[in-house]
Formats: sequence, structure tokens, C-alpha cells
Amino acid sequence: MRKGTYPILLGLWLSALMLLAAPLAAQAADASAKAPPRVVVQMADGTPDKQGLLLANVNNLINHYGQGKVTVEVVALGPGLSLLYKDNPLSPRIRELASRGVHFKACENTMKAQGKKLSDLNPVSEPVPSGIAYIVDRQAAGWLYYRP
Amino acid sequence: MRKGTYPILLGLWLSALMLLAAPLAAQAADASAKAPPRVVVQMADGTPDKQGLLLANVNNLINHYGQGKVTVEVVALGPGLSLLYKDNPLSPRIRELASRGVHFKACENTMKAQGKKLSDLNPVSEPVPSGIAYIVDRQAAGWLYYRP
Amino acid sequence: MRKGTYPILLGLWLSALMLLAAPLAAQAADASAKAPPRVVVQMADGTPDKQGLLLANVNNLINHYGQGKVTVEVVALGPGLSLLYKDNPLSPRIRELASRGVHFKACENTMKAQGKKLSDLNPVSEPVPSGIAYIVDRQAAGWLYYRP
Repeated sequence: MRKGTYPILLGLWLSALMLLAAPLAAQAADASAKAPPRVVVQMADGTPDKQGLLLANVNNLINHYGQGKVTVEVVALGPGLSLLYKDNPLSPRIRELASRGVHFKACENTMKAQGKKLSDLNPVSEPVPSGIAYIVDRQAAGWLYYRP
Repeated sequence: MRKGTYPILLGLWLSALMLLAAPLAAQAADASAKAPPRVVVQMADGTPDKQGLLLANVNNLINHYGQGKVTVEVVALGPGLSLLYKDNPLSPRIRELASRGVHFKACENTMKAQGKKLSDLNPVSEPVPSGIAYIVDRQAAGWLYYRP
Repeated sequence: MRKGTYPILLGLWLSALMLLAAPLAAQAADASAKAPPRVVVQMADGTPDKQGLLLANVNNLINHYGQGKVTVEVVALGPGLSLLYKDNPLSPRIRELASRGVHFKACENTMKAQGKKLSDLNPVSEPVPSGIAYIVDRQAAGWLYYRP
């Protein structure tokens, strides 16, 4: 080949590579939509009916995607913190969901307002400083939001 | 021109093209924000007041954007499934919204739990296996979420 | 250096630059997730308990991120419009939050339905044509959604 041919070939190769770059970048930015869904579920209600419904919802969600194929966190705040009270009759179902990988977050602002310590709550409870800020942060990080 | 000039020109052209690639890719990834909005609306309440309000909300949404310029799906689940019961007094308004392009999805998990068959529901109803998973999937696909 | 060397160096430089382009583009598309969060909060309930809880939530949100490091808008619609009635006992707390940068939007569709003029509402109120469309538009523009 002639001396000037190599740079031209290099240019063509670069050109082809670049045509791939734009869609790849778009795909990277869109990746969260294709990964297993991560869902932050809000528990803000204090009635047994609504709390039972939330646990049924979460259970359906895991059955639908398959265990390990969806990430679910329940954030209990305001009147919904009672979901995580030690003496809540739903505790066995909460423990079962926890054993299937569901995380249960307790809002510390609410704990303070209701005079509850971590030792008053279901042992699966994980404290977070602010329930609403936690939900907002999760959404900002690409999590999906569900409010039963 | 001299023999070595062409590869340099090619290189400059590639360089210019590449400067365009990054913003274009970002734009592509952001495209969903500019398209007509797609909204998944959750109906989880069983009271006539809240169900009437939801239909008014959806009606306002379509009037605001203009028919055909917004896509709306209502997902009825839990106590909210009663929205789609055949004998719900709101049925005429539901049929009217359906005629304007709104889709009404019925959660099959809830249908099972409430002992309802598709033939017990408003003929506009479209069954989905899990209402919550449907809402999550829609969000993952870029739909916006509204919980009245 | 030999005459053919420059185009090759240019090609290598382009190649390196291009390897940077894809992640940069992805980052640009993802930028909203790293900026200070913007949160649209929905007030659709008319009970004093739920309205007080909403204000506490918003207060916690601002305390958590720090004033000026989070943007919060409250959209009052349906029965929730009463939050912005002039005679609502929560008015002092609303004014205080407004002074900390929180915006309060009043749904004009609801105002019409409830026979209220802007002069009947808290002076901080900013009217929007449709509360639900406003919430949907904000989400489409990258805002995060919170429904107490």
C-alpha cells in the first residue's frame, strides 16, 4: 500500500467506532431502565387494613418478578411507623418478607416524635434520619416509587 | 494539495463530528422527557368520593394537554378494583373516558382475592397479572406516576 | 518526524478523545440525578391531620438537605386545596415554610369547582391551571414526586 493509506484507514476505523459511540452512550444512560427494578415503597398509613394491603402488594411484587430479580425497600414514616412496632400483629409477615430480601426502613424523625427507640421496633428495622429525604434520594438514584 | 493533507482533513472532519456526538447522545437519552407525557394513574381506594375525584383528575389531564397529546392508563387494584365493578355508578363516566382513549387495567391478583371474573367488570377493563408490578414496569419504561 | 506521522498522531488523539465522549454524554444525561433535588409534593387530602403531616414532612426535607439545597413545591388540589384557605389554622406554618423558599401552588380547576377566588386563599398561593397536569409536567422535567 501507499504511504498515505494507513492514516486514511485509521480515520475510517475511527469513523465507524464513533458511529457506535452515540447510541452506546445513550444506552448507558438508559441502563437503569433495563436493570432489575429497584422499588422504594412508602408506608405512611397507620390502619391495619392499609398496612396489610402494603405487605400483600410487596409480596405480589416479589412473586411477579421472582425473588432476587427485584429490590424492594419499605419506608415507614408518620402514622405508618406503627407497621414496625414490635407488637404489630403483622410482624410475622414482615419477618417473612425480610427473609425474602425486603428491607424495612424506620424514619428517625418519626421515632423521635412518637417517643420510640430502635429497641421498641421489629428487629428487622433499619433506621434512616428522614423518611421523606430517604424516599427522595432513592428516586434521585433511579429507584421507582410506589405509594400504596 | 499535498499527499498528506487528505488524512488531516479527514481527521478534522471526524473531530467536528465527534463534538456533536456527545450532546446528541445525551439528547437521545433525554428524549422521553420531551415526548407527549404517558401517565400511569393508580386507583387503590374504594370510596366513591376518591373514585369520582380520580375520574375528574383524569378528565382534567386530558383537557389540559388535548386529546391524543397525553397517554393515560388507570390501574385499579386492592379496594380500588371496585371502580371497575359493572354496577359502579361511575360506569358511564368510565366509558366516556375510555372513548377518549384512557385505558383501564384491572389487577388479576385483586380479582382473585375478591372472587371477581372479567365478566363481573366493566367491559372496558383490561386485566394485568399484578397491578403493582404493572405500575412499576410502566415507570421503568419512562411513564410518569400519579397517585390521587 | 516523517511526513505521514502527523495524521497518525492526530488519529490517536481523536481516538483517545472519543473514548472520553461516551461516558461524558452518559454523565450529561444523568446530571439531574446529581444536582440538588427538586421535589413536587402533592396535597390531595382535606383533613387537618394529613395537612399537618405534610408540612412536617416538608420541614424535615428542608432541614435534611439544608435550606437552598433542595427545591420544594407543594401542589394543593381537590380536597387538599383547603390547605391554602385563608382561615386554615396551619397558615402561620405555611407562611414560615414559604419564607424558607417553599412554593405553594393552587389548582385552578379545584378553585373553580369549590367556588374560591385567589383572594380567598393564603397570599403565598400561586395558581396553576391544572394541579395534576402541573405535577405530571414537573416529573417530566426531572422533578421527584412525593405523595404524603
